[in-house]
Amino acid sequence: MTQQFTPHGMHLIAGEWVAGERTFRSEPAHGPAHDFAVGNPGHVDRACKAAAAAFPAFAATTRADRAAFLTAIADEIEARAGAITEVGTQETGLPEARLNGERGRTTGQLRLFAEHILKGDYLDRRHDEALPDRTPPRPDLRMIQRPIGPVAVFGASNFPLAFSTAGGDTAAALAAGCPVVVKGHSAHPGAAEIVAEAVQAAITRCNMPAGVFSMIQGGARDVGTSLVQHPQIRAVGFTGSLGGGRALFDLCAQRPEPIPFFGELGSVNPMFILPEATKARGAEIGAGWAGSLTMGAGQFCTNPGIAVVEAGPAGDAFVAAAAAALKDIGPQCMLTDGIARAYRDGKARFDGRNAVQPVLVRESENRTAAPNLYETDAASYLQDNALGEEVFGPLGLVVRVSGAEEMTALAQGFEGQLTATIHMDDGDIDLARRLLPVLEQKAGRVLANGFPTGVEVAEAMVHGGPYPASTNFGATSVGTLSIRRFLRPVCFQNIPEALLPEDLRG
Amino acid sequence: MTQQFTPHGMHLIAGEWVAGERTFRSEPAHGPAHDFAVGNPGHVDRACKAAAAAFPAFAATTRADRAAFLTAIADEIEARAGAITEVGTQETGLPEARLNGERGRTTGQLRLFAEHILKGDYLDRRHDEALPDRTPPRPDLRMIQRPIGPVAVFGASNFPLAFSTAGGDTAAALAAGCPVVVKGHSAHPGAAEIVAEAVQAAITRCNMPAGVFSMIQGGARDVGTSLVQHPQIRAVGFTGSLGGGRALFDLCAQRPEPIPFFGELGSVNPMFILPEATKARGAEIGAGWAGSLTMGAGQFCTNPGIAVVEAGPAGDAFVAAAAAALKDIGPQCMLTDGIARAYRDGKARFDGRNAVQPVLVRESENRTAAPNLYETDAASYLQDNALGEEVFGPLGLVVRVSGAEEMTALAQGFEGQLTATIHMDDGDIDLARRLLPVLEQKAGRVLANGFPTGVEVAEAMVHGGPYPASTNFGATSVGTLSIRRFLRPVCFQNIPEALLPEDLRG
Repeated sequence: MTQQFTPHGMHLIAGEWVAGERTFRSEPAHGPAHDFAVGNPGHVDRACKAAAAAFPAFAATTRADRAAFLTAIADEIEARAGAITEVGTQETGLPEARLNGERGRTTGQLRLFAEHILKGDYLDRRHDEALPDRTPPRPDLRMIQRPIGPVAVFGASNFPLAFSTAGGDTAAALAAGCPVVVKGHSAHPGAAEIVAEAVQAAITRCNMPAGVFSMIQGGARDVGTSLVQHPQIRAVGFTGSLGGGRALFDLCAQRPEPIPFFGELGSVNPMFILPEATKARGAEIGAGWAGSLTMGAGQFCTNPGIAVVEAGPAGDAFVAAAAAALKDIGPQCMLTDGIARAYRDGKARFDGRNAVQPVLVRESENRTAAPNLYETDAASYLQDNALGEEVFGPLGLVVRVSGAEEMTALAQGFEGQLTATIHMDDGDIDLARRLLPVLEQKAGRVLANGFPTGVEVAEAMVHGGPYPASTNFGATSVGTLSIRRFLRPVCFQNIPEALLPEDLRG
Repeated sequence: MTQQFTPHGMHLIAGEWVAGERTFRSEPAHGPAHDFAVGNPGHVDRACKAAAAAFPAFAATTRADRAAFLTAIADEIEARAGAITEVGTQETGLPEARLNGERGRTTGQLRLFAEHILKGDYLDRRHDEALPDRTPPRPDLRMIQRPIGPVAVFGASNFPLAFSTAGGDTAAALAAGCPVVVKGHSAHPGAAEIVAEAVQAAITRCNMPAGVFSMIQGGARDVGTSLVQHPQIRAVGFTGSLGGGRALFDLCAQRPEPIPFFGELGSVNPMFILPEATKARGAEIGAGWAGSLTMGAGQFCTNPGIAVVEAGPAGDAFVAAAAAALKDIGPQCMLTDGIARAYRDGKARFDGRNAVQPVLVRESENRTAAPNLYETDAASYLQDNALGEEVFGPLGLVVRVSGAEEMTALAQGFEGQLTATIHMDDGDIDLARRLLPVLEQKAGRVLANGFPTGVEVAEAMVHGGPYPASTNFGATSVGTLSIRRFLRPVCFQNIPEALLPEDLRG
């Protein structure tokens, strides 16, 4: 069934579709371009004030009410499935199967949070009963996690659904009881609009306060800066580049009243292929790596950009297999022209370095990126900080090491990462035992004998890690624990039952 | 039993007592002054590097090992009880009973954390089992909270034991498995030294790595600044002034790799006395307020500096009772000359304002502070931001309101607070119902019919709140939840059992 969707290009501000004085034109990979309103600080102010006005009522909703609301958003997204995939594929250049899968992930996330809040564990309710006869007497103390207030969410270029308008940050904030103001990403404004329409339909159906959700299209830098600086905003969820994210983090920290900026800013996701595993199945791992490295044209946050493997014939077989598999993969369409350009710039950084040898190098044009593979040695890698910088796209760097010592030294040298992977066989256990405690300190997720792309939305997932992988190593932006970002503990001392939040009564 | 303790004045750096090139002289309220080493960035660097070196071994200790260590610290502090009280009373001018009580609180805190980690709930272990037959297959995912690395702790002027060397921040960090570097407060360097000696004795007894604890005496500004900027430090625990705390917060945010600064920066802890309660027992509440306001010479973070009550005879009776009770309390010794001076400066701010009427005003000299009481009206209070600024010491401000509307408007106007209190009778329930959701947004702890001083160390306690009460509204610095500041979630995907952290095995 095909669905027709022609974007009208407006912002959604607290239930009203609002046009802008200026517009920008979308740049789809294929299909028609459309005009979209450029957001401005006035739009942001209106949305944030509406969010603050809606907050007391939304914070007072029951968990059952919010679960029904999250489910209704999922239903309304599914009701627009065909149109979402159409506009999403056009805008991002990603294939249909990917958009369909990402939509399932997005609605699954919303439904998972509905279930999660109904269980109520996340409230971490604690009760210290009064001890009136103690000296001094102890009062009755009850603690619960309460919503923090309006949350700003930035749409991410690389996941038009799962990390954007009604993605993980929005789902977690709404589940917590926090209104959301989304800044749409200018790479997929049509997807932002149709998903905002779905959220608005759910608001109407569930009779939620209108200010609970707004979506301001981007197109100008001051949308984001005014959003994170707005006095009513209490926290920010962001997935994007290190440069842009750090600038917003700094603005949040410099506010008169600083707020947390939950930013996920990039990662090279190192893989360590241990000697016995390399010998036993180096070629298989190499081919698998190529698949993970090119998933979504290499535009996954968890893209494993660096593989560490020993020098010698087994390592050579790993590299050769990776190169062969990558060679079969042609140029892929990138999310935007700018991202394709940045990929070529990143590649040029490698081409210009003596310490780096090309293994498979191809030119790519316009909005495409062909997979590229380079190789270097541990000493060169440790000397040249630039080699550890993320190149967003399907570019792999193999770092050859002389043995366990160099592999451990490399592990210690990495900055914070979303993920760190080891490939190991039974005979690698001693080296793995040395690496694991190091990698645990470097990454939010440590995995064995797999690839980090494909982030499960689950109870035990951590999508975060030490800086610069994320700006808050204590938080995750995927999985049910991500709700904790938008909650704060409040202690109620001797408060009469009738005045307690509903979740503390009875 | 009296114990002799003559401070040697040195820093404790990873098991070694280290003298400094320069010294500062302590300024006790009574008893002998002593010379103490002035810390410098070199000492800080040595301590932080030792902490980082000790971290892997400490992170790998069992919870039973760390519980035994915390208990040993408590035992070693108790073994020095008499000497700690003697040096503490001399340095702070606080009475013996207070030092004895605070020591009990400190050791109780250490023992509570020992119990808490043995229970293991704080690990928030999560397991999503592998679903190999699903499309795509789900890997085995296990999450656990792991220690973050070396933590910096700043001794607080107002609690030489419970919020200083082996106070709540240190107890929580060590319980989590994080080494600690303490910056001693120059107001009580002798108390810092003897408590550091107790911690060191416990390290030796429990065979912990030496770098797990260091204490650098202050006396120079660059001790604190170099500590929060040290690359090995992963988080900071701080209790102190808004100015000093914000400066350190900014340094933490500006680091190449920003770290969380858990600062508790002050609060005026407003009390709302509702009309029926005022009529029924205004005088009783007024007398109770005077007691809370002068506890520890008004030098508690939770000191209730502002009381909001209706105009009219019942409110007058409240004010009169408070004034009468305060009049009976003479000048009290303050923690330092500087704090006594700042108290007089704060008082002068009130004296110079037309909108503020004196109720009970007395001069105080040298290192003492006499309780003072002022009164203003809601309109003046809301117009003059300076009236909401904390005056550290026994100074109370009554804000008279015309009724429920003004009381609610005042509540909405407050900045973030550690606590907010209502005094209410049954007939006040409707107004209380309006105030509670507002106060919940303003404070970490909301209480009824009590006084906020006396922070229970318990499971359900929250000592924190929106800025400026604390720099992280999601955290508490008192109670078992405070351990969460020093933990981060890590997800282990398909990791062989033998390589998992011990707490995830079996």
